[in-house]
Amino acid sequence: METGPKGVFAAVLTPFNKDLTPDHEGLVAHCRGLLARGCDGLAVLGTTGEANSLSLDERLGILEALNDAGIPGRALMPGTGCCALPDTVELTRRALDVGAAGVLMLPPFYYKSVSDDGLFAAYSEVIERVGDSRLRVYLYHFPQMSAVPLSLDLIERLLTRYPGAIAGIKDSSGDLANMAALVRAFPGLRVFSGADDLFLPLLKQGGAGCITALNNVACAISAGTWAAWRRGEGEKAAALAGELSALRALVTSFPQIAALKEIMARRDKDTGWRTVRPPLVRLGAKQAGDLFRALEDQNFAP
Amino acid sequence: METGPKGVFAAVLTPFNKDLTPDHEGLVAHCRGLLARGCDGLAVLGTTGEANSLSLDERLGILEALNDAGIPGRALMPGTGCCALPDTVELTRRALDVGAAGVLMLPPFYYKSVSDDGLFAAYSEVIERVGDSRLRVYLYHFPQMSAVPLSLDLIERLLTRYPGAIAGIKDSSGDLANMAALVRAFPGLRVFSGADDLFLPLLKQGGAGCITALNNVACAISAGTWAAWRRGEGEKAAALAGELSALRALVTSFPQIAALKEIMARRDKDTGWRTVRPPLVRLGAKQAGDLFRALEDQNFAP
Repeated sequence: METGPKGVFAAVLTPFNKDLTPDHEGLVAHCRGLLARGCDGLAVLGTTGEANSLSLDERLGILEALNDAGIPGRALMPGTGCCALPDTVELTRRALDVGAAGVLMLPPFYYKSVSDDGLFAAYSEVIERVGDSRLRVYLYHFPQMSAVPLSLDLIERLLTRYPGAIAGIKDSSGDLANMAALVRAFPGLRVFSGADDLFLPLLKQGGAGCITALNNVACAISAGTWAAWRRGEGEKAAALAGELSALRALVTSFPQIAALKEIMARRDKDTGWRTVRPPLVRLGAKQAGDLFRALEDQNFAP
Repeated sequence: METGPKGVFAAVLTPFNKDLTPDHEGLVAHCRGLLARGCDGLAVLGTTGEANSLSLDERLGILEALNDAGIPGRALMPGTGCCALPDTVELTRRALDVGAAGVLMLPPFYYKSVSDDGLFAAYSEVIERVGDSRLRVYLYHFPQMSAVPLSLDLIERLLTRYPGAIAGIKDSSGDLANMAALVRAFPGLRVFSGADDLFLPLLKQGGAGCITALNNVACAISAGTWAAWRRGEGEKAAALAGELSALRALVTSFPQIAALKEIMARRDKDTGWRTVRPPLVRLGAKQAGDLFRALEDQNFAP
């Protein structure tokens, strides 16, 4: 059976310099830290990484920098789904060049209410143009953000036509029933939860893991959950999953990306981490204070 | 008083070659035709132009091609609002280089539920980085497609900070009350309707014109409406506006961009016009048949 990405992935934050350019050194250091802390993989250049606020060249530059720094390709699952077909193709090719185990691919997300025929054509065109047997696509279902949902019918059509290339899906809908339906309908498909609180419930349904923003600061807890689950230590897994859920509830009561960067800034004593690209905004002083007090109440140390 | 864009603008369709690359020659010819048929201006590279399915290089190439072909910059209002700040800046600069009278600027549209602070920062950063006194920004409010609405508060803040650069807005919400509120709140702002059926109602409220997809095939009717309105021929204006509204209702009962391209293909006897980029799909044969029968019933000849 083919091996491939499984377990705990961070939807990796992107640190920025003061001029809003990506901070390559900071990102490399963060990626190394995540792997050292127990992440199985790195979903760089996704929603959490503010990748949709980055130009194509900036995204390619980040892949290059990670590769140059020796971050192993087998740990990478870069986001490569752009609005424009040629951008998705170029980014996907580059991801394969650096040995990425998979790519996480949003559908083109500007045009809304598009048909399954249109989405099939979009994914199809990318897969055909990339034309590389190493390609492993993880579809990205995130209706609340992309506003372009991926239906089971669409996934079935893609799997039928491209059984080798369509490897999995990240489901950020927050809907366990949808994730369970995906696992049931498509036994070969690796289903990842985009929500920490559904990580363990999804594992129980036969899911493959989680890819979450919170893992930037809490991957040790996720890794512990994953390890306990695999060892059959149900109680321990449940306790850790409970911690994760509580943390998620807390962090998502703030603008999540800004809150996570605030936590990184404090942990690494590096205020540069607080920088976000517009249209996001950093937390205000009062919000940050509230966040840290609430984290202390939960005895959380990132 | 400063002169500037007013009247009837086409949200210009982009023809594609068989390999899905933009057909520059076809686009230039279409732009010339639109000006000859009575368009006051050309909103190229917008939603209708499938610009959000084009890479930055492809968009820059289109501006270059229009410029090389002698399409006058004063007639151009290119769409330049991308998800990524550097892309919006580069495209906006190039638009100014080719003498564009204005640019139509979507907010960054991937991240949803962003704050007015974040949207202010996004527009602000673009305006400051472009740093060109010739810049005239037309904001683009299209909540149904971008899923990132522009509030009156945000517009007021932008106008206060950048009174020279913020010149107008295209309101595609289909909400006449919002358009009227914009006109009332911001007397210097040129408000364009993105909906044909609200063109005349908006003129009566003090609006500046319309920027619509239907104008690709029906700008003569819009130009007639606009001329009649300005001459005080209320009855004639209303009759033409009624024709426009009926046509809009018909065309938008199909996927609009594909339907308009179908009409262009038939009018110009050029099946190449039928090509759209994924995630859009061309009309099926039955749909096209239904469309043309309905157009005949309305005695419409593009």
